[in-house]
Amino acid sequence: MKITLNEAAEILLSQDNILILTHKSPDGDTIGSGYALCMGLRQLGKKANVVCSDEFSKKYNYIVDNAPSQDFDVKFIVSTDVADTQLLGDKLSVYADKINLCIDHHGSNTDFAEKSYVEPTAAATAQIIKKLLELMNVRIDKNIANAVFTGVCTDTGCFRYTNVTAETHRIAADMIECGADSGTINRIMFDTKSRARIEVERMVLDTMEFFADGQGALVCLTQKMLEDTGATDGDTEGIAAIPRQIEGVKVGITMREKENGIYKFSVRTSDDIDASAICANFGGGGHRAAAGCVIDGGYENAKNKMIQAATAETERGL
Amino acid sequence: MKITLNEAAEILLSQDNILILTHKSPDGDTIGSGYALCMGLRQLGKKANVVCSDEFSKKYNYIVDNAPSQDFDVKFIVSTDVADTQLLGDKLSVYADKINLCIDHHGSNTDFAEKSYVEPTAAATAQIIKKLLELMNVRIDKNIANAVFTGVCTDTGCFRYTNVTAETHRIAADMIECGADSGTINRIMFDTKSRARIEVERMVLDTMEFFADGQGALVCLTQKMLEDTGATDGDTEGIAAIPRQIEGVKVGITMREKENGIYKFSVRTSDDIDASAICANFGGGGHRAAAGCVIDGGYENAKNKMIQAATAETERGL
Repeated sequence: MKITLNEAAEILLSQDNILILTHKSPDGDTIGSGYALCMGLRQLGKKANVVCSDEFSKKYNYIVDNAPSQDFDVKFIVSTDVADTQLLGDKLSVYADKINLCIDHHGSNTDFAEKSYVEPTAAATAQIIKKLLELMNVRIDKNIANAVFTGVCTDTGCFRYTNVTAETHRIAADMIECGADSGTINRIMFDTKSRARIEVERMVLDTMEFFADGQGALVCLTQKMLEDTGATDGDTEGIAAIPRQIEGVKVGITMREKENGIYKFSVRTSDDIDASAICANFGGGGHRAAAGCVIDGGYENAKNKMIQAATAETERGL
Repeated sequence: MKITLNEAAEILLSQDNILILTHKSPDGDTIGSGYALCMGLRQLGKKANVVCSDEFSKKYNYIVDNAPSQDFDVKFIVSTDVADTQLLGDKLSVYADKINLCIDHHGSNTDFAEKSYVEPTAAATAQIIKKLLELMNVRIDKNIANAVFTGVCTDTGCFRYTNVTAETHRIAADMIECGADSGTINRIMFDTKSRARIEVERMVLDTMEFFADGQGALVCLTQKMLEDTGATDGDTEGIAAIPRQIEGVKVGITMREKENGIYKFSVRTSDDIDASAICANFGGGGHRAAAGCVIDGGYENAKNKMIQAATAETERGL
């Protein structure tokens, strides 16, 4: 059942012993939202914990360390930034049909909870949590401000993406005034690359080839690159965005080697070229500007099929 | 003479036929500030032009095209975002001792104008211009909002640097509400790299070496790389930030080949290691976190001297 944010605040005020679920492969927004809510509830004298199927990266310690786990019998379950119960992951899947309240900003939210407040125009769930805490008369202290700021800055690529609204900037301003260490948080989130990432990026750039008169660019990430550099999933995050960033490139393609000559493709487009149409040729799909698919039959075969399909779509789009 | 922003507004309201000077190698802030002021003055029925010693990059056309040059005899001269008359460049140097009003945010401003308003805590001069225009009762329309937003986002690395304050975010919010195309501007400024840039970046990464147990990293940009890729100054902007971004690196050094075995060094530090102390060894200087110097005597000689000095300072800082 859809409820208003006011109703969500009233429900939370009437509850105690609250378990807060975050999504698997946790990012800054699910962590920031979950912990901001948890710290707010504790400030009101309630018991609350944040849980996740996966471990939190150490870089979020400045948030996580402020709300060590408490001992209590769970009486109420809230999810933050979880669009679908599949995203709870293995450890939390037991809660899938027991969630009392869902706070989220994904338009694709599957309405799995007893009561839901979903605001798709919010750039981050943390943006909603900030308003929710104010409705509950929680004082936004420095720790809560750091958590909210983290959610907002990570889900907007540091205020770069088109999901940023005037409200996003106003909330960031408020959080800075409440003591958020915005400069330090931005440095941790956006200005630090692992050595493995630098190495992988260099190797991936070495594979770049252009097609469709420079309107398309393709790079490849191989298993050997991962082995040689020791790069993990975290280290290769965002690699798929690189080819499309090149001036004049409207179709950026990243192919990632799986096993047995199978390649996973990420296609990013601009200027009205349809990425999902390109990937539909190979049974894949996605959004207009970002889509994916899998092609087998070895490197040359997979690459050539993709370049052919992408070139055709680029020419159609002109 | 230092004046208040109110006084600056009153002076501008009393003047006409206004020439606005921007600094050489123009960036988003000097262009955004200059054009926002120019468009505001024209809205009040005054004549005004923006000039620069260097050409504006085409990526700023969405600003520049809104205020084509007007014909008039100059009666009043304002500089925006110019810290020192040397930064006017050759073409504008004739105005060096004729500037009536200076609007700037550099703490290092040399107070060269008849009257100056300098606000060093402003993240961008555009942030000041926005307030100035409001004091002059200019309506911030979409074009002015785009110019102000551009100044603010470019001088803060898209709201990433530590110069960002709550006011910076509030002004960004206001500009979005006044119609600024924030998403498009951020894409142009932060999400587009030239082919030459990608090439140069790859070559520079190939030269990376670590020192001081991985706490220092050094890269080199050679004349040959520039020739091979056709990279211009714009293409190498921000290269100096790369080595310090690597996890664990506290001293990031970029050496850039000049002529006759002479190298220009950019030193970026974190964690209280003093970049200006490192560069002072070679007659250079700067700030605590960013400094520069020149060392001659060829590649190996210059590199080794710098690594020795940087290692010593890193060990002192621990």
